[in-house]
Amino acid sequence: MNTHETICALATGRGGAISVIRISGEYAIEIADKIFTAKRKNKTLSSQKTQSVLFGYISENEVLIDEVLITVFRSPNSYTGENSVEISCHASQFIVQKILHLLLANGARSAASGEFTMRAFLNGKMDLTQAEAVADVISSGSAQAHRVALQQMRGGFSSELSELRARLLTFISLIELELDFSEEDVEFADRAALRNLISEIDTHLVRLTNSFALGNAIKNGIPVAIVGEPNVGKSTLLNTLLNEERALVSDIPGTTRDALEDVITIHGIEFRFIDTAGIRQTTDHVENLGIERTRQKIEHAEVVLHILDAQSADFHSKIVELAAEYPHKKIIPIVNKSDLFGRVNLLATTPDGRDILYISAKLKQNIERLHNALLNAIDIPATASDAVIISNTRHYEALMRSREACTRVSDGLQTGISGDLLAQDIRDILRHIGEITGQTFTPDEVLGNIFKNFCIGK
Amino acid sequence: MNTHETICALATGRGGAISVIRISGEYAIEIADKIFTAKRKNKTLSSQKTQSVLFGYISENEVLIDEVLITVFRSPNSYTGENSVEISCHASQFIVQKILHLLLANGARSAASGEFTMRAFLNGKMDLTQAEAVADVISSGSAQAHRVALQQMRGGFSSELSELRARLLTFISLIELELDFSEEDVEFADRAALRNLISEIDTHLVRLTNSFALGNAIKNGIPVAIVGEPNVGKSTLLNTLLNEERALVSDIPGTTRDALEDVITIHGIEFRFIDTAGIRQTTDHVENLGIERTRQKIEHAEVVLHILDAQSADFHSKIVELAAEYPHKKIIPIVNKSDLFGRVNLLATTPDGRDILYISAKLKQNIERLHNALLNAIDIPATASDAVIISNTRHYEALMRSREACTRVSDGLQTGISGDLLAQDIRDILRHIGEITGQTFTPDEVLGNIFKNFCIGK
Repeated sequence: MNTHETICALATGRGGAISVIRISGEYAIEIADKIFTAKRKNKTLSSQKTQSVLFGYISENEVLIDEVLITVFRSPNSYTGENSVEISCHASQFIVQKILHLLLANGARSAASGEFTMRAFLNGKMDLTQAEAVADVISSGSAQAHRVALQQMRGGFSSELSELRARLLTFISLIELELDFSEEDVEFADRAALRNLISEIDTHLVRLTNSFALGNAIKNGIPVAIVGEPNVGKSTLLNTLLNEERALVSDIPGTTRDALEDVITIHGIEFRFIDTAGIRQTTDHVENLGIERTRQKIEHAEVVLHILDAQSADFHSKIVELAAEYPHKKIIPIVNKSDLFGRVNLLATTPDGRDILYISAKLKQNIERLHNALLNAIDIPATASDAVIISNTRHYEALMRSREACTRVSDGLQTGISGDLLAQDIRDILRHIGEITGQTFTPDEVLGNIFKNFCIGK
Repeated sequence: MNTHETICALATGRGGAISVIRISGEYAIEIADKIFTAKRKNKTLSSQKTQSVLFGYISENEVLIDEVLITVFRSPNSYTGENSVEISCHASQFIVQKILHLLLANGARSAASGEFTMRAFLNGKMDLTQAEAVADVISSGSAQAHRVALQQMRGGFSSELSELRARLLTFISLIELELDFSEEDVEFADRAALRNLISEIDTHLVRLTNSFALGNAIKNGIPVAIVGEPNVGKSTLLNTLLNEERALVSDIPGTTRDALEDVITIHGIEFRFIDTAGIRQTTDHVENLGIERTRQKIEHAEVVLHILDAQSADFHSKIVELAAEYPHKKIIPIVNKSDLFGRVNLLATTPDGRDILYISAKLKQNIERLHNALLNAIDIPATASDAVIISNTRHYEALMRSREACTRVSDGLQTGISGDLLAQDIRDILRHIGEITGQTFTPDEVLGNIFKNFCIGK
């Protein structure tokens, strides 16, 4: 992709009352001027101040296409850092196509997915983690996912990483100084201090990589499995949870959410029910397919809702059995049809101290308590609102590589390896951290992969 | 609807990279300021100049919602004529809902459909025909529909009408002067000149009302019927026409047109095939349902494509028959499967001089000639690009009422009725013309009807 060309694309969604077309590149303002006539005589976009709006007309061969508002952004005061123009026109597909065609005819080219944001990265307006977060901000559907993405977009993650980098850089320069004086066998870099630093950095990296499970779950929804024998009311419960959610969403006209299948949001956190098509449509099959299917569901889940029938005599022992089989899974025991059962001899907790929930999915009783149990099952730390949470696989992998390099440095310090080998391992840590923010050279292929999933116009 | 309240709505379509939220009303800028913090210290929207853009943050209880660009428009320099604000945020449903909620919490209310444009009308930024044209501009899907709507939005129709009004007003003031001197039996208003003026105005109104058939067809597509006996290739022809169109539309990524069923656009004019589901899916039924169905299709059509099979011996006589039955319809005789037939003894024209088209729908032969025949069948005057064409039923009806009043004035002049009756009829003409532009008082109910079909955010 040639970054010297001027690019253009529709930036808004389809429909609505107005559409916005973005142009960015060295000649963005001149190209827009070629198709635009300001309403006020003698005004042109080229003579406009940055971040100001001009009203006028876009025409093709003196045939009027639309009345538009055009905002001019002059480099570096724009999203991309380049000269940029935003054309706000009527939201007609006909008009949008005409204007884009005119821009192409006058020297712009169609932008690729994410190309505006890629240019913002290449022009130093943001680092890679911030650029990646832009797509996450747009697609985030829950308060928590939005918060994680927004924090990353604003550079929260980057600033943590650059602090780590800065401290390592001090050491590496000292070690390199040693190498210059290698004949003399001096140690400028204090090995004990370095060991402390590496251990500190490793703790930091461990915290970040550990946050990935949560970050990923927040971004894509916490996978929840509903398991239980046939006819305990699994589908009724799922429908109760989903219908409540559907009634809640979208109370403002024009902003109805996409029909989200099998997803509920509780206090800004998305819970996604896995393999629910199976639960709802082939309840009988679950029995036939037997344990294997249930096992798969439980393994993919972060939280398991274990549904039992209050009328069944041995539900207490079933709770204990499942918990014993999956000791590391968060299982919430739920006794359904509590309305059909006298509340005598019911245990409040499992032998290992977990609460047992008594609900009626049909009568919608105690559903609020189930919500709380779901929230408690995933422990988002109380301080989560400030802590950096990573949610991107690319970041996770680079952090894991940094940790491996950390281990090599630790081992090297232990075995007293030479300064040049030590320096190489420290440089490895730096390189892997740099990959995350794009401070290290980033091959086009990696950039292409990052931006190809963006929408066009961003 | 309270026009003193400040209104807000999402103005762009769903999806995309950015969304724009519009706010309008006396307190638009103050309300936006309550939820916004500029990036540059000490900057507020309230201190911004009109038509300038400020970068900053929208937060809720110190939790960041989004980074946004906000454009300020100060009354009267805005679309509505009121103080207005446009918030350009990331195109996330979550963010858009949050921002709208915050605006509502701070004193704005959700805008009704078309309420921004209605306020533009009420504040004298545009007259009713212009306001109505805004919705047409947005929905126009072809070059001609777009042109008609845009000309109306820019006031082309209004200025024709106000010219007529101005000339009538001169006369009515003279006649009213006569009434003041009624004892003296003087005639200030020259009756011969008035007769000429009324005749001129009537000619004008006739031209406008006559343009409605075309205007309506341009706006909604020219209805075309494809008729013919089973197996003459009606569905093949329709598919050939439609597929060609589908290959043509949308060569710019991100701007694909909605799948338009059974509509083709030739030189900017939409042709809409009526009742084609029947043709394509129940070809056999056409025969069974017999003449009645064909009759209905022909009656609803502006143009009829009469398809005949080149292999059928008597197709010449069939062409003559159909033409005789529907003498007022524009029927294009099309002989299909011309590839299966030696080109001997074929007539080039019908007995009444219409060209007979020989095509092969299957081999896509002579389809270009069919396009031209369709364009020729509807006569858009060569000067159409300048002439005002009306496309709105409300305008058509008001113009028809104006014509009736014109006739009463003419008749009155003929029979020499008194000045006060004459004045009343002239005032009727003025009133009906005034209804069109909204210069006459427009009841809320009429306004409601006009704007209810707008999209929200316009």
